[in-house]
Amino acid sequence: MSRFSIGVDLGGTNLRVAAVDESGTLIEKISTNTQVALGRGAVLDEMCRIIQSLAARFNSRGPLAGVGIGVPGIIDMESGMLRESPNLPGWANYPVQQEIERRLGTSITLENDANAAAFGEHWLGAGQTVDSLCMLTLGTGVGGGIVLDNQIWHGMTGMAGEAGHINVEPNGHPCGCGSHGCIEQYASATAIKRMAMEAITSGKAPQLALAMKADPEFSAKAIYNFAVQGDEPARKIFEDVGRRLGIVVGGLVNLLNLPMYVIGGGVSSAWDAFAPAMLRELQARSFVYAATNSDEHASHKTIVTRALLGTDAGLFGAARLPLLAPEAIAKEARPA
Amino acid sequence: MSRFSIGVDLGGTNLRVAAVDESGTLIEKISTNTQVALGRGAVLDEMCRIIQSLAARFNSRGPLAGVGIGVPGIIDMESGMLRESPNLPGWANYPVQQEIERRLGTSITLENDANAAAFGEHWLGAGQTVDSLCMLTLGTGVGGGIVLDNQIWHGMTGMAGEAGHINVEPNGHPCGCGSHGCIEQYASATAIKRMAMEAITSGKAPQLALAMKADPEFSAKAIYNFAVQGDEPARKIFEDVGRRLGIVVGGLVNLLNLPMYVIGGGVSSAWDAFAPAMLRELQARSFVYAATNSDEHASHKTIVTRALLGTDAGLFGAARLPLLAPEAIAKEARPA
Repeated sequence: MSRFSIGVDLGGTNLRVAAVDESGTLIEKISTNTQVALGRGAVLDEMCRIIQSLAARFNSRGPLAGVGIGVPGIIDMESGMLRESPNLPGWANYPVQQEIERRLGTSITLENDANAAAFGEHWLGAGQTVDSLCMLTLGTGVGGGIVLDNQIWHGMTGMAGEAGHINVEPNGHPCGCGSHGCIEQYASATAIKRMAMEAITSGKAPQLALAMKADPEFSAKAIYNFAVQGDEPARKIFEDVGRRLGIVVGGLVNLLNLPMYVIGGGVSSAWDAFAPAMLRELQARSFVYAATNSDEHASHKTIVTRALLGTDAGLFGAARLPLLAPEAIAKEARPA
Repeated sequence: MSRFSIGVDLGGTNLRVAAVDESGTLIEKISTNTQVALGRGAVLDEMCRIIQSLAARFNSRGPLAGVGIGVPGIIDMESGMLRESPNLPGWANYPVQQEIERRLGTSITLENDANAAAFGEHWLGAGQTVDSLCMLTLGTGVGGGIVLDNQIWHGMTGMAGEAGHINVEPNGHPCGCGSHGCIEQYASATAIKRMAMEAITSGKAPQLALAMKADPEFSAKAIYNFAVQGDEPARKIFEDVGRRLGIVVGGLVNLLNLPMYVIGGGVSSAWDAFAPAMLRELQARSFVYAATNSDEHASHKTIVTRALLGTDAGLFGAARLPLLAPEAIAKEARPA
């Protein structure tokens, strides 16, 4: 009998829970809204109820390897505390791991959602053929996750992978993290909307201005549609996104020399609008990228590519965690 | 009998060779000029002559574990080729490893000089207490090296660690690597001299202008001396160095969450002139730095510190390579 595990992607908007078998086959997936307004206790109650119902439903299938949970924000791996989480207001300094384990009566594996997404893409998505990768998740914010030698790189306290807060403009737009000019301020859906607003305010984007008048909530996707239709101000926004991403990914290539960099999250659907500028910038900015992608290195190219699993990356990555847990635990228990 | 090894730091100016025992004790060190003008063959002949004389002299002491050689530039680990090396003109695409091994009649371990320096500081310097670190070597250029879980992180082709070519000013000063605004252009000795020249040209640095008239070759060290004596334009240059370093190290902290970042190389002697601005910037820019250095994390602080081994870091790091070689070879031989 094949083992299975339960993965959870606990987002600020959606709560998704899946049962996945060892080979990565999805057994069942349950999606619901995250009722953040009801408070963190209620959200965890609902989540644990779904986990337990899935566990009970499939317990004849094989042993449950465990539960892996991806949450947005900064997790302190040692204490299982959520230190900061812009998408889960009121959850800062909440002992998430302990609260979940108390409800389930069993230990779980907690992970940052962007790390889980990177791990998911490594398992079943774009990164199946490489042993190391770095993924940027372009959503409301910009998350990041690093997989080195087939394991998530956690760093000293589990806070590694925050590539969204690499600087790309020293005196740039203020960022929620306290800095200015983080890539999150230039390549997230939020940033794309802000840049559109700036273009509208400057009077340089008449089509976007009309669209916003018709729908004040207009989205990054709407701006992308204008870009695809050739609207110059919209096109420029995505070109800027690409240029900024190229600078940051170029730095990652020079620093880490990984075989693959994966761009995921909702904004990655606009790949054709920003990727040409990104790849151009990479070639010009990163001599490691240029060297590895020259003819002599045909077998060791640096690949920069789109994520393949869409919104399921984090769910699959979370489900993978308990399947590998003994190894991960051994790694953490090792003396410093 | 304790094993010993021979480490080499082959620089564009100095050629240094040392015999070091397993415990890290220096047995003997030989320093000479690198006669680059005589051509690469002559340089390697001289280097191999010194290696062989040291090996013969101490062969009664114990078995020679091997020879480790640090060279400046980008090394392709698989082929042992030096791909680019600004400090060794004419050595690009030279099969350095093969040429040395032919002369010595034995295999050697080749390493980028900044990686070797990081490995040396990890063994015997600032990083003895941590299992992972990233080191920036601020010299003529800015080199970088990453040690993860007690091993040099080489990346896919051995080109990892090029932190000197992380961007800090998107449209900044052109860099030898082809990009613009790399940290190398704002924190190297070369950059400090350029910034002094810019201040002189703008008419804003009368003291520096007089000094340069007296000594057209005036060095980063001379500029540092002015800064220490309170010369405002000189002080501002080092404050800018610190600010730029803070932005880049802040990005490294957010990305890698390592326990330690080491600043070495000649410019690190000016620590007191640039470090306050660097640490201020780090605190403001990197929420991972701020979080780990808050009171709750007393046992897991992010340490940013000066290198301790001075110019010997690379020499010791190179000597350590053959002492660990079996493990390193096993790691490289592992299928991708």
